[in-house]
Amino acid sequence: MGDLHVHSLLVTGANRGIGLELVRQFLGMPSPPAWVFAACRDPKGQRAGAGTDLPFVGSAEVTDPASIKAAAARVGEHLQGSGLNLLINNAGTAKASSLDDETLENMTQIYTTNTVGPLLLGQAFLPLLKKAAQGTPGSALNCSKAAIINMSSSAGSIEEVFLWNYGQVVSYRCSKAALNMLTKCQSLRYRDCGVLCAALHPGWVQTDMGGSGSQKPPLRVDESVRGMLKVLSSLSEKDTGTFLDWEGKVVPW
Amino acid sequence: MGDLHVHSLLVTGANRGIGLELVRQFLGMPSPPAWVFAACRDPKGQRAGAGTDLPFVGSAEVTDPASIKAAAARVGEHLQGSGLNLLINNAGTAKASSLDDETLENMTQIYTTNTVGPLLLGQAFLPLLKKAAQGTPGSALNCSKAAIINMSSSAGSIEEVFLWNYGQVVSYRCSKAALNMLTKCQSLRYRDCGVLCAALHPGWVQTDMGGSGSQKPPLRVDESVRGMLKVLSSLSEKDTGTFLDWEGKVVPW
Ligand SMILES: NC(=O)c1ccc[n+]([C@@H]2O[C@H](COP(=O)([O-])OP(=O)(O)OC[C@H]3O[C@@H](n4cnc5c(N)ncnc54)[C@H](OP(=O)(O)O)[C@@H]3O)[C@@H](O)[C@H]2O)c1
Ligand SMILES: NC(=O)c1ccc[n+]([C@@H]2O[C@H](COP(=O)([O-])OP(=O)(O)OC[C@H]3O[C@@H](n4cnc5c(N)ncnc54)[C@H](OP(=O)(O)O)[C@@H]3O)[C@@H](O)[C@H]2O)c1
Repeated sequence: MGDLHVHSLLVTGANRGIGLELVRQFLGMPSPPAWVFAACRDPKGQRAGAGTDLPFVGSAEVTDPASIKAAAARVGEHLQGSGLNLLINNAGTAKASSLDDETLENMTQIYTTNTVGPLLLGQAFLPLLKKAAQGTPGSALNCSKAAIINMSSSAGSIEEVFLWNYGQVVSYRCSKAALNMLTKCQSLRYRDCGVLCAALHPGWVQTDMGGSGSQKPPLRVDESVRGMLKVLSSLSEKDTGTFLDWEGKVVPW
Repeated sequence: MGDLHVHSLLVTGANRGIGLELVRQFLGMPSPPAWVFAACRDPKGQRAGAGTDLPFVGSAEVTDPASIKAAAARVGEHLQGSGLNLLINNAGTAKASSLDDETLENMTQIYTTNTVGPLLLGQAFLPLLKKAAQGTPGSALNCSKAAIINMSSSAGSIEEVFLWNYGQVVSYRCSKAALNMLTKCQSLRYRDCGVLCAALHPGWVQTDMGGSGSQKPPLRVDESVRGMLKVLSSLSEKDTGTFLDWEGKVVPW
């Protein structure tokens, strides 16, 4: 396992849940990144990590192409010519639903946030990720150099259909299966740019999203994120285009 | 392998390509179905199977919930109390695109047609499919009794990413991966209703969609459809929720 030495990273949906904890643990590292861009869609809103002192990059609404482009431009200005090592597409949404009551509107809204958002972020930040890859010695892919990490879910594993009896959430499952496909496509397209791409399943975690049902999720958010950081530090060339859980185990598509 | 004895079926996108050939081969069977509903979005349009004499059910625009509900109501009236055995979600769309030039609009439009359409059709026709299942003796699932078949693609296999070098078409790939997830969810939800659900890859076929690039697809549409009908006739209980190609081989998710 290698170490994770990231000069700069951006996390979407960083005002609460897994995104907020990712930012916290990066900032708490022995040698923390120089730049931690904690993006959220409503930096002045009630839920914007109140009580914490995070370096928010301002608004990044992942369903809005203009907002994403503006965020990439601001990040580029801050970095003053250096690249971005790590983009973590963490923002995501779900709505309790059964197959019978899914609608066109719900399917579209969840897909836009969970699948199209990560696509647009990848496009917008590619120039900065490329710059980071070019500025880092060695040709092998890894997360300290340049990477896109998409927060997926075993709920989006067509093989596993994780927690079906807990919630059908077909719109969510379809969006995450599609996100896994996007991750694979990104890995094929961005490999030559020196950018590693992988999908992660954080486990079933105690957050607003994970814990809204009747049953309590088994994992604390700090445990999930600690596991994922260890996984990120271990990723290499062979892992681009894969789908791994917070313990590093391969999740079937 | 069993026989395919379908009393009634509906095919979407039946005015050309694979959908039209499906209707033709069903009508050409030694004992053809009593009802073949050949749905298309523009029954009076130029492309509505000119020169053929097909029993069009009128408009079924698969991105429009009202149009789908109206089609289900009309089909129900025609069937006068009997159910629908087979729903083939064949209508689909693709747009030449690379990962770099995908847009929110393209992602949404392709997803709406290829993924949300089949979801809404399944919901709208479920009462008729259930009725068919209840009206057929025996408890085992099969296509002569009640089934939903979703026309997917190996291009939507996250494992295979079929024909990547021929066309990235990320919007199309994401929509078909999501359709595969939908198929799995439908199989879990509709099993107790007596409805078999499966996804098919028709092969790479000489149609408007298959043949728009520089290379000619290897399969004629009649060969692809002949293969798929054989596969449909062989499907049983164990095949619900699977993804098979026109030769009956399992395609990895
Ligand atoms: N918790 C679990 O058990 C679990 C399991 C598998 C996968 N995941 C995935 O892990 C990721 C984080 O989940 P979580 O549990 O931390 O969820 P959460 O507590 O509900 O937080 C979701 C985050 O995403 C943000 N977000 C939602 N829509 C957005 C949009 N359109 N633009 C920008 N930001 C948006 C939210 O911002 P606002 O505060 O502004 O709404 C919030 O910061 C998600 O992708 C989720 O699917 C979670
Ligand atoms: N050809 C291949 O190599 C291949 C390979 C893998 C999978 N497939 C899949 O097989 C299916 C049929 O493909 P094909 O090759 O026959 O394609 P095609 O020749 O392009 O025909 C597509 C059909 O879908 C209909 N359609 C598109 N959007 C629609 C909408 N919104 N509402 C209703 N109907 C709509 C079209 O109607 P209009 O005439 O009104 O446009 C047409 O009837 C598709 O799902 C495709 O993804 C094809």
